[in-house]
Amino acid sequence: MQQLIDRIRKDGVLKPGNVLKVDSFLNHQMDIELINEIGKEFKHRFADLDITKIVTVEASGIGIACIAAQYFHVPVVFAKKAQSVNIDGEVYSTQIQSYTHKRIYDVMISKKFIGPKDKVLIIDDFLANGCALVGLIELVSCAGASVEGIGIVVEKGFQTGGEVIREMGMRLESLAIVERMDVETGEIFFRGE
Amino acid sequence: MQQLIDRIRKDGVLKPGNVLKVDSFLNHQMDIELINEIGKEFKHRFADLDITKIVTVEASGIGIACIAAQYFHVPVVFAKKAQSVNIDGEVYSTQIQSYTHKRIYDVMISKKFIGPKDKVLIIDDFLANGCALVGLIELVSCAGASVEGIGIVVEKGFQTGGEVIREMGMRLESLAIVERMDVETGEIFFRGE
Repeated sequence: MQQLIDRIRKDGVLKPGNVLKVDSFLNHQMDIELINEIGKEFKHRFADLDITKIVTVEASGIGIACIAAQYFHVPVVFAKKAQSVNIDGEVYSTQIQSYTHKRIYDVMISKKFIGPKDKVLIIDDFLANGCALVGLIELVSCAGASVEGIGIVVEKGFQTGGEVIREMGMRLESLAIVERMDVETGEIFFRGE
Repeated sequence: MQQLIDRIRKDGVLKPGNVLKVDSFLNHQMDIELINEIGKEFKHRFADLDITKIVTVEASGIGIACIAAQYFHVPVVFAKKAQSVNIDGEVYSTQIQSYTHKRIYDVMISKKFIGPKDKVLIIDDFLANGCALVGLIELVSCAGASVEGIGIVVEKGFQTGGEVIREMGMRLESLAIVERMDVETGEIFFRGE
């Protein structure tokens, strides 16, 4: 998605340790006009699918999933990261290791909101090592629902997540795939360019 | 907002301890059509304000804030709950006690994304004891920005948060204010009815 690639090049910030910060428009401050275009692009790429629910995980996936859901006319269910007194009843749960936060989270979805009839589109902001995504796929599969597609805004193509997910046979669409970043020069190279 | 009140009455679930669960349409599974109407209603109620940014706190406020932001044509900034390696540089931070999670969170906003020129609309899903909201007001004020308005989806009118915030002189609009709930009969009474 050229508009997204241009924006990452303009406002993305590289840090040592292969960190790409897009917090000025995607996951701390959110440029809603851009995210609307991202939502339309997901609809365009998955137009052939009959989706019943969009699933994401808190926190930074939620806004993108909600904006995109307007084009699919389906509800969003977001996996929660901590046990809350407001989640009772039975849940599907798994553990996700966060590369960004250097810790392990329990994530869960109430069994009330996902079931065998659901055809799910998973949406998230970032794909790096794939831990969060594998966890979400596990939650959806535990519910007996099918993962029809996965929409990612930014994939770090030099980490293993994308390969792992594609080898699982998943239909994965990443709107921008970073192949290589040069923290010295600030250059970012995208797949397909 | 009658559509919201009707929905809370239809799908809200009461639990002992004055817990009102709206997780089937607002803060775990999200009915995007309803949240779109909520976004429009916020725009209607704050139509006279010249807003530059919508501020919320992760996680359940984010989707509502993003959908609403489409009607205000401004970015969303969401306060983050945990220090991340992806937030560097200076931040405004405070602590929020969560009634729901029975713990204290550090929340923070990067100084890059809020400043003295900003006219802020704060949006959140729930207002009960007001701790989260007071924390958000503090973050915005520390940045030298002004809180022009506060939009809440569900206020628990029998808890002290709404009174505290109104006594601060804040312009607070809650789309549904629960006056009383009867866990025995399942009845919910709203202010103004």
